[in-house]
Amino acid sequence: MNFADRLAARVDEVANPAVLGLDPHLDHLPPEYARAKDPGVARPERARLLADFCTHLVDLAAGRVAAVKPQSAFFEVLGADGALAWESVVAAAHAHGLIVIGDVKRGDIASTAAAYASAYLEGSCAADRAHLCDAITVSPYLGADSLEPFLAACKRASAGIFVLVRTSNPGSDAFQLHGSPALAERVADRVRAAGEALLGDSGFSSVGAVVGATKRSELLRWRELMQEQVLLLPGYGAQGASASDVAAAFTDRTHRARGALVNSSRGIAFAWQRPEHAGKHWKDAAAIELGRMIAELRAALGIRV
Amino acid sequence: MNFADRLAARVDEVANPAVLGLDPHLDHLPPEYARAKDPGVARPERARLLADFCTHLVDLAAGRVAAVKPQSAFFEVLGADGALAWESVVAAAHAHGLIVIGDVKRGDIASTAAAYASAYLEGSCAADRAHLCDAITVSPYLGADSLEPFLAACKRASAGIFVLVRTSNPGSDAFQLHGSPALAERVADRVRAAGEALLGDSGFSSVGAVVGATKRSELLRWRELMQEQVLLLPGYGAQGASASDVAAAFTDRTHRARGALVNSSRGIAFAWQRPEHAGKHWKDAAAIELGRMIAELRAALGIRV
Repeated sequence: MNFADRLAARVDEVANPAVLGLDPHLDHLPPEYARAKDPGVARPERARLLADFCTHLVDLAAGRVAAVKPQSAFFEVLGADGALAWESVVAAAHAHGLIVIGDVKRGDIASTAAAYASAYLEGSCAADRAHLCDAITVSPYLGADSLEPFLAACKRASAGIFVLVRTSNPGSDAFQLHGSPALAERVADRVRAAGEALLGDSGFSSVGAVVGATKRSELLRWRELMQEQVLLLPGYGAQGASASDVAAAFTDRTHRARGALVNSSRGIAFAWQRPEHAGKHWKDAAAIELGRMIAELRAALGIRV
Repeated sequence: MNFADRLAARVDEVANPAVLGLDPHLDHLPPEYARAKDPGVARPERARLLADFCTHLVDLAAGRVAAVKPQSAFFEVLGADGALAWESVVAAAHAHGLIVIGDVKRGDIASTAAAYASAYLEGSCAADRAHLCDAITVSPYLGADSLEPFLAACKRASAGIFVLVRTSNPGSDAFQLHGSPALAERVADRVRAAGEALLGDSGFSSVGAVVGATKRSELLRWRELMQEQVLLLPGYGAQGASASDVAAAFTDRTHRARGALVNSSRGIAFAWQRPEHAGKHWKDAAAIELGRMIAELRAALGIRV
């Protein structure tokens, strides 16, 4: 089944658009994982701890949200052992029926882009399947033709991509808003056009877009420019966007949770560090914050369960 | 020692600016490596073959060129086993005194970018050092602030980055030449500014730029805009640039091979596929083509050895 449709079905099941980001930043792991950041501990053991932490987050996500979004950088820190941890976490997420959006932000041309697509979406053999992603994030700087090998892989593997269109970091404007119309609008236009070939029965395409979620007015603009794209919105909670801010990205009046995905990573996984959760186990703090996020999104979107 | 200075010293030693790209594309490996592309063969064995192929290329590069440039995508295809192969190839290159430019095209913001920088340039423990890169390629779409964590890592680790400024694929114009001045010129300006803090005694910065090498007139423009950047030029041979085309990127009249790096990957590694090398061993074909490239570059730059 087309990725966008598979995603829509899972979103309907859980009745919320939340995505749990898996950003196992070594400096923020709970005390019981202190050995993961100790350079004196052997790397395989450190990677095992990283995977264990993420697997607990996957357990927490299971049945509550449609998807998890592991962030590749925090696994790559531990080299080949980190890559093994990545694979085990992806497999654990799949075992729980979660959709996996690999936040890898890869981008290259021709056969090199095809190799990235193969690595994350198609695999090089049947045994790879458990640790393939359902979708990955892709960087567009090299041009619309750099997306083509990813699109071809999406067709063959019923997978998806989320193309970086607009981010909310302070320095993003200089490049993304360069020119008139802004570069990001031009990228959005190419993303929309590329997505037409991968449209699902849900009305959404398997080609989505990453759009910074902190400015409501901008969000309305991206929604307008990319009506068939699932918008992946990072930055809920920790980076400042609220449920009512992100509600602007949802336009499907029948299936209210469809059309956008709202990601929170550190606001959940590292909730234990906040004073209000002092004394709680990190998993309890994470569960409370994930529950709160889901409730807030449902309220803002008018979803009754 | 500053990366740019270390690179300049190695370039002077070998008296040429060639870089041997390591793009172990499974579909183009010589017949003796057929098992590497066989999905029925266990992944660790396939990765071992990939590493073996690259290690032979590293042996070929040793003493002849200053640097090798492994392309991450072709290792990532084999997942965690590919990551292990990457590490062994990087370590083999270092054992031969070669500089390693990891072609990873990573790009993200804040602590995520810092994690990528740590993964490839700094390492998470002393044991990592053998398989760290001396420099990596970085994608700028997220903005100039997304470069900062990489710059900080370069300072701490005496490493370098090559920022994607301009590529030569057919679809690159729509984004990279968007606006007036073109986006890529704006990126070049930020790269130049960022590079000032990492200037070496050689007069070049450890912040370099990737610039498509197929248009001589454009190359002169990038050279003018980024006088302190080492320009990394892909596309020699296979992608159409000749030695006289790329000569425009070199301006150091005293040290003629400095100021730019000219990469060839498939033109060397897969030379065995060309009719003119029929019947030769793939290593012999590669050695001939690498020798030819070095000779052509020396002739175009007026380097006598």
